[in-house]
Amino acid sequence: FSASAYEIGVNEEIPVTVYGVAAISAVDYNISDNRNAQTGYELENESRVGFRAGKNMTDDLHVFLQIESGYVGNFGNGGAGASGSLGVRDTFIGLGGDWGKVRFGRVLTPMYELIDWPFSNPGLGAVFDWGGTVKGYNDRHSDQVRYDSPTWSGFNFAASVGRGDSSKEGSNFVGANIKYTVSTVTLMAAFESNKNFKGGETIENSDDTTTYKEGGDVNTYFVGFEAGLPGGFSIAGAFKQADAKDRFINGDWEFQDGDASQGSYSLIAQYWNGPFGLRAGYAATLDSEINGETQDDADNIVSLQVMGNINGFVPYARVAGRTLTSVNGTNADTDVVLRVGLEYGF
Amino acid sequence: FSASAYEIGVNEEIPVTVYGVAAISAVDYNISDNRNAQTGYELENESRVGFRAGKNMTDDLHVFLQIESGYVGNFGNGGAGASGSLGVRDTFIGLGGDWGKVRFGRVLTPMYELIDWPFSNPGLGAVFDWGGTVKGYNDRHSDQVRYDSPTWSGFNFAASVGRGDSSKEGSNFVGANIKYTVSTVTLMAAFESNKNFKGGETIENSDDTTTYKEGGDVNTYFVGFEAGLPGGFSIAGAFKQADAKDRFINGDWEFQDGDASQGSYSLIAQYWNGPFGLRAGYAATLDSEINGETQDDADNIVSLQVMGNINGFVPYARVAGRTLTSVNGTNADTDVVLRVGLEYGF
Amino acid sequence: FSASAYEIGVNEEIPVTVYGVAAISAVDYNISDNRNAQTGYELENESRVGFRAGKNMTDDLHVFLQIESGYVGNFGNGGAGASGSLGVRDTFIGLGGDWGKVRFGRVLTPMYELIDWPFSNPGLGAVFDWGGTVKGYNDRHSDQVRYDSPTWSGFNFAASVGRGDSSKEGSNFVGANIKYTVSTVTLMAAFESNKNFKGGETIENSDDTTTYKEGGDVNTYFVGFEAGLPGGFSIAGAFKQADAKDRFINGDWEFQDGDASQGSYSLIAQYWNGPFGLRAGYAATLDSEINGETQDDADNIVSLQVMGNINGFVPYARVAGRTLTSVNGTNADTDVVLRVGLEYGF
Repeated sequence: FSASAYEIGVNEEIPVTVYGVAAISAVDYNISDNRNAQTGYELENESRVGFRAGKNMTDDLHVFLQIESGYVGNFGNGGAGASGSLGVRDTFIGLGGDWGKVRFGRVLTPMYELIDWPFSNPGLGAVFDWGGTVKGYNDRHSDQVRYDSPTWSGFNFAASVGRGDSSKEGSNFVGANIKYTVSTVTLMAAFESNKNFKGGETIENSDDTTTYKEGGDVNTYFVGFEAGLPGGFSIAGAFKQADAKDRFINGDWEFQDGDASQGSYSLIAQYWNGPFGLRAGYAATLDSEINGETQDDADNIVSLQVMGNINGFVPYARVAGRTLTSVNGTNADTDVVLRVGLEYGF
Repeated sequence: FSASAYEIGVNEEIPVTVYGVAAISAVDYNISDNRNAQTGYELENESRVGFRAGKNMTDDLHVFLQIESGYVGNFGNGGAGASGSLGVRDTFIGLGGDWGKVRFGRVLTPMYELIDWPFSNPGLGAVFDWGGTVKGYNDRHSDQVRYDSPTWSGFNFAASVGRGDSSKEGSNFVGANIKYTVSTVTLMAAFESNKNFKGGETIENSDDTTTYKEGGDVNTYFVGFEAGLPGGFSIAGAFKQADAKDRFINGDWEFQDGDASQGSYSLIAQYWNGPFGLRAGYAATLDSEINGETQDDADNIVSLQVMGNINGFVPYARVAGRTLTSVNGTNADTDVVLRVGLEYGF
Repeated sequence: FSASAYEIGVNEEIPVTVYGVAAISAVDYNISDNRNAQTGYELENESRVGFRAGKNMTDDLHVFLQIESGYVGNFGNGGAGASGSLGVRDTFIGLGGDWGKVRFGRVLTPMYELIDWPFSNPGLGAVFDWGGTVKGYNDRHSDQVRYDSPTWSGFNFAASVGRGDSSKEGSNFVGANIKYTVSTVTLMAAFESNKNFKGGETIENSDDTTTYKEGGDVNTYFVGFEAGLPGGFSIAGAFKQADAKDRFINGDWEFQDGDASQGSYSLIAQYWNGPFGLRAGYAATLDSEINGETQDDADNIVSLQVMGNINGFVPYARVAGRTLTSVNGTNADTDVVLRVGLEYGF
């Protein structure tokens, strides 16, 4: 007798690893209560769990799988388990060897990987990650084939091709990043080019018919650096520029006709003294230009984080001031965001 | 070459445990076919799986994570995997030490923990857990900070603060329980106090505008006991009372204006003889009082369960009679519910 | 102090196994761009992960649990993690012994198990699995009790009872398969009989009332064989016939009044030479008969797959021609589907 008579697939001698990140924080997005829009604190449980399983197919070819859940907490009463399905975060099958590795599935785009870390932390994402009037790139994205090179003399690169919306014809993107490290300095550059960005949209007309409009072409360019300084200090900075043609996604995440472009930058300074660290950041979007006209829609965030690293656990507290003209209008006031949390990997 | 170049977070030497509960049962909710409302039997797979990962941050401070899925079965054709996401059941990060422990995230409220067990089993939940005309408390709830004390000379307590609906201002609750055990007797008391209960609701007006109405204030009080008797017998009983002011959630789970209060109780007797057990329960709500007028809406359930404990496996069969006036009206007949199942932890 | 004070259930000495299947492929469903309906390639990540936990309840009775996720990839931009919940694929609790095993929960029906494998592979499912004008059976289905016999002298069988839609009265099915193997030849037969198929539907009338219509009775019969031949060759074939009375589900997956019947068959030839394999398949539905009139709606797929088996990894490439009259009309042209992928169990 065996319970395995209906097992699916061939169960090879491939070890499975369960891993994850524990990440809980209490946050108040608007303790200054601007626009009477404060709702109070919330606990955000951004913990996630995943599985890895791989082994060598041949002496020279390693095959590996990763499946990762989304955040297991509910946010703003989004419902328990709302994003706690498997496959929400990086989920792929890959091949690797001396030549580097290639992953198929849901991964970060090469440019977004740099935007996400280190340049959107501490708490700069609402401007430098998903913010601004001209959305210019994908972030974590399915239907992607991404190659990452090994490091040669301090130099490495990644390149990716993917579908923006695989159900729409011609919705494709390509992207790449390149990094060069000498001593404690790393220089970075990246780009991403989208055709029929995110597959466009289908509009319902007043006569009950629908019109399909493509998403336009959007290119984004990125340069950045990180540098370790003496005495526990380090600094980092990046600038990126999005250029959209014919049609783009605006600050309200809606498609809008027109050519548009916008630049943004992020500056970060960090200091560690034993287990104690400080991290300060400033990120801003410049005024966008739509159909040749400069808008009055610059956003900025200034943020300060104190943190520890105690036996692998990272407790932190962060205060940030968000001035988001692109969302709250030209008279936007500064929302003060306070977050206290704890993270650790396992 | 390493597959781990894009691993998220720092993978510490923290062991991960996969655990779960297997729970399957066949149930017929109305074998007496009252109101011609029988649909036949159904299999309910309430199994769930979870992950735990923790270690000491310092000699005196333990940090621990739990992520648990919802029930993996579909119920009433709710769709495969409908609640099988991670984070649906108790999902939290906690800190512990000699002083007790505090958990942040999705946990049972202190009062609900007692209501759930032992007082809503066997099959009394439709009255004593989520039943009745005046809903008075949260159950498993996110956005919660809960402290549990160690046990001092038979005495322990738990206290919790949380957000009812974190997207609504002023929607908060506090709660606590206290337990005292002497010999085989445990005395318990608990309360929970809600402001803007569950965040209220937004009503669509006839002129297409909307009106936001708060959820009212609701307090619930609880007392109970358990006692072991000679010869394998034990008994338990509890009474709780919900008092709502201005606005409350009624038997149809809809907000209703008015002051309202309702009491309910649960009585349980149990007998174990070796691997064989019997458990009998009776739970009832009293007639509620709305705006000072006593309603005719008392519910009750009488239930008998036979069960075994064979090498850690718990097979059981249960028959219950449910008379739910609050749902089926003042002439409610008694639905006979039959359930046969098996449970075990792993 | 213990983090386990709120553990759910009794954690027995039952080992938990994490298992899964890695399955990624790039597919283009219509490289011939018929009807200008090509959208380009897509990556389909059909990987899934699961958990098993069981042990002996008594010397003669083994108890086992399986919980399995759905596919972790998104398809046609269905959203990340859209089907990555636990409980989407085979998820059950079972009992086993010398007498065979019985599983309670979500499993394949006995007939569908044979339809699925080997007869819908390579790439024949759009005809032989879920295709055709007369839908005749359940596939993976919850609310099922399935018994599988041991093998006696080459003979074994499985039988199942289940609810079609447990929320609808009288929606039930029974099914069975039987297999007999002598030398390298296996003969198979199966049937499935549905009452109130899939619970029927509720129709909204023009006067805002609703009418509930049952799903009709549908019976499907199946015969098939597999035979190993000398020199690495093997062949397989199957025929099935669905007979619906009063009401049935048609090619657009909508209920339709009337009696209907349709036959379909699948023929497969396979050749392995060391790690290298070829698999060719042809599947077709015959013209259906509705209310005694023969329709012009036959579908067919012809498919060829080359594959390897390298150290447990199975890379493959497949090309198929799909001519689906039941979906695309009587002048349906042949969509050429190309898929390249890799699978392995872990």
